[in-house]
Amino acid sequence: MRIGIDAMGGDRAPVEEVKGALAAREFLSKDDRLVLIGREQAVLEQLSGAPGWKAFIEVHHAERVIGMDEPPVESLRDKPDSSIAVMAEMQKQGRIDASISAGNTGAYVAAATMRLRRLRAVHRPGIAVVIMTHRGPISLCDVGANVGCRPQHLHQYGVMSSIYMNAVCGVASPRVALLSIGEEDAKGNDLVKRTRELLKEEKTINFVGNVEGRDLFRGVCDVVVCEGFVGNVVLKLIEGMAEGVIRAMVAEVARSFPEQLEVMKRTAQAVTSRFDFNEYGGAPLLGVNGICIICHGASDYRGFKNAVGVAMNVARKQVNARITEVLSRCEGPADG
Amino acid sequence: MRIGIDAMGGDRAPVEEVKGALAAREFLSKDDRLVLIGREQAVLEQLSGAPGWKAFIEVHHAERVIGMDEPPVESLRDKPDSSIAVMAEMQKQGRIDASISAGNTGAYVAAATMRLRRLRAVHRPGIAVVIMTHRGPISLCDVGANVGCRPQHLHQYGVMSSIYMNAVCGVASPRVALLSIGEEDAKGNDLVKRTRELLKEEKTINFVGNVEGRDLFRGVCDVVVCEGFVGNVVLKLIEGMAEGVIRAMVAEVARSFPEQLEVMKRTAQAVTSRFDFNEYGGAPLLGVNGICIICHGASDYRGFKNAVGVAMNVARKQVNARITEVLSRCEGPADG
Repeated sequence: MRIGIDAMGGDRAPVEEVKGALAAREFLSKDDRLVLIGREQAVLEQLSGAPGWKAFIEVHHAERVIGMDEPPVESLRDKPDSSIAVMAEMQKQGRIDASISAGNTGAYVAAATMRLRRLRAVHRPGIAVVIMTHRGPISLCDVGANVGCRPQHLHQYGVMSSIYMNAVCGVASPRVALLSIGEEDAKGNDLVKRTRELLKEEKTINFVGNVEGRDLFRGVCDVVVCEGFVGNVVLKLIEGMAEGVIRAMVAEVARSFPEQLEVMKRTAQAVTSRFDFNEYGGAPLLGVNGICIICHGASDYRGFKNAVGVAMNVARKQVNARITEVLSRCEGPADG
Repeated sequence: MRIGIDAMGGDRAPVEEVKGALAAREFLSKDDRLVLIGREQAVLEQLSGAPGWKAFIEVHHAERVIGMDEPPVESLRDKPDSSIAVMAEMQKQGRIDASISAGNTGAYVAAATMRLRRLRAVHRPGIAVVIMTHRGPISLCDVGANVGCRPQHLHQYGVMSSIYMNAVCGVASPRVALLSIGEEDAKGNDLVKRTRELLKEEKTINFVGNVEGRDLFRGVCDVVVCEGFVGNVVLKLIEGMAEGVIRAMVAEVARSFPEQLEVMKRTAQAVTSRFDFNEYGGAPLLGVNGICIICHGASDYRGFKNAVGVAMNVARKQVNARITEVLSRCEGPADG
């Protein structure tokens, strides 16, 4: 298997990307290769000194970089020689079997969708991120690929994420929930009410009904389906809040029990690591005809290393074939 | 001033409502009265034994109760003798000057909107909840009154919440932010992009641009404007997550430093109390022609007591008159 890594995407590119690729060697069998895509000289500089990297890493030059704040579609058009555009093109041509990027998410999603197209029967790709809670992992889909969701998109996110959680995280019969503002049928907005009807009738998933924001941390579901705007707000809120609450705890100990500060800091570190996105290595863009793994912009080398693991798992467990199989069965009218 | 309290609304009604009313005496001057509305006998039972309650509390009978899960509009129609319906009618007739309920939010919002109508120039009422963060309080509006927001509704939520934060929380020139999924103009959904243009042009507020979920805990704004569905998800997520993270910290200490468990528990308690909705006493329904304070269903007596304080503050600072004054100036086309 050949996995492309956008070497220029993350906040500390290409340093963490290269380190992550080197560390990912443990996941690879002897025929697997990682292809670092980006400014050759910068990448080679980071690789220099690493023993034996040529056995499993290749470098493919891409001259430019799409910045985090650039408009996705325009930047792809203006920068066909950017690492994201080049990587998508390579994946389309079959020169890599999977891709990983911590760069501009919108641009990566657009490039993947335009170049690889959707899987058969999929309406819209969605990003399924795995979030750790103290009650175990949950998958949240979509977290920002699609901010104009229709009920049939959300329905498919439920199906796709359920397959993903089963295949990659080993959850048997994942409990799929719909994010709303009350557990009752009558609550929520129009999108949620219509989606609920579709999910209720979907025989291939274990739909457990609506959940509210507070339920995400109560171990009542394995998959949470939501519209991309809401999912993105939730994801970033969780990130900011875990940090905020933990800081408040440390500050409180510093104030009231200063002699225990060391214990508290170690506790904070242990708990922080459980909410650390680097541990889960990236979120698949489900529904594209290819394997595309999105990393957090602030990923360190572990994020990239684990993203390689996720990509290999998605391939090994044939997640895309399973998605196509299930969704083709219940294929509805075509949708843009 | 006469303040009505739905005695049957909360999870432990009427116990906490009555306790809260008794405790609120400290806020009242000698002409102020609290009117407990609900099943007379049950309320009187709770009051019995409290010395001197007749000096500042009245009881007004309402036979029925709207359950938390009942559909708002239908339940109001079917139960005109419910505490929420009776209270709204009393407020309409001027027999009370403000109302407080921890009951079915949808029913309370519907009753208030139907009976009291909107303030002049207000398109849609919105609930502005104050959330504590370790960087200070922020107001989030709307958190569930309006799940079909248009840009002009969100625009007004920014104006109304800014007035509220200034008047009641004493924040000079509140920094108003729009909740989105990126700080750039180009990010977000259509609603956010159009709202952003309106907020940018609004001269009466200090608009600081978009914020993301993670920024809520970074002290970068005082008011966060969002659509009611998103706001409700965020509010409940914050609640569940504060609890979840704090529990994870306690569990970690129990595991790794069991001898420090007592210190940790006291720290958890101190930090929990900072995220405690009871401390802030309820969220005003901004934009109705009256003072309506919504309490959390799980409020204890402090929640009700502090809601009385909020209601008095809204009256004293003439929040509604200020809202009408500002919004009438920039009155746009009428909207439903």
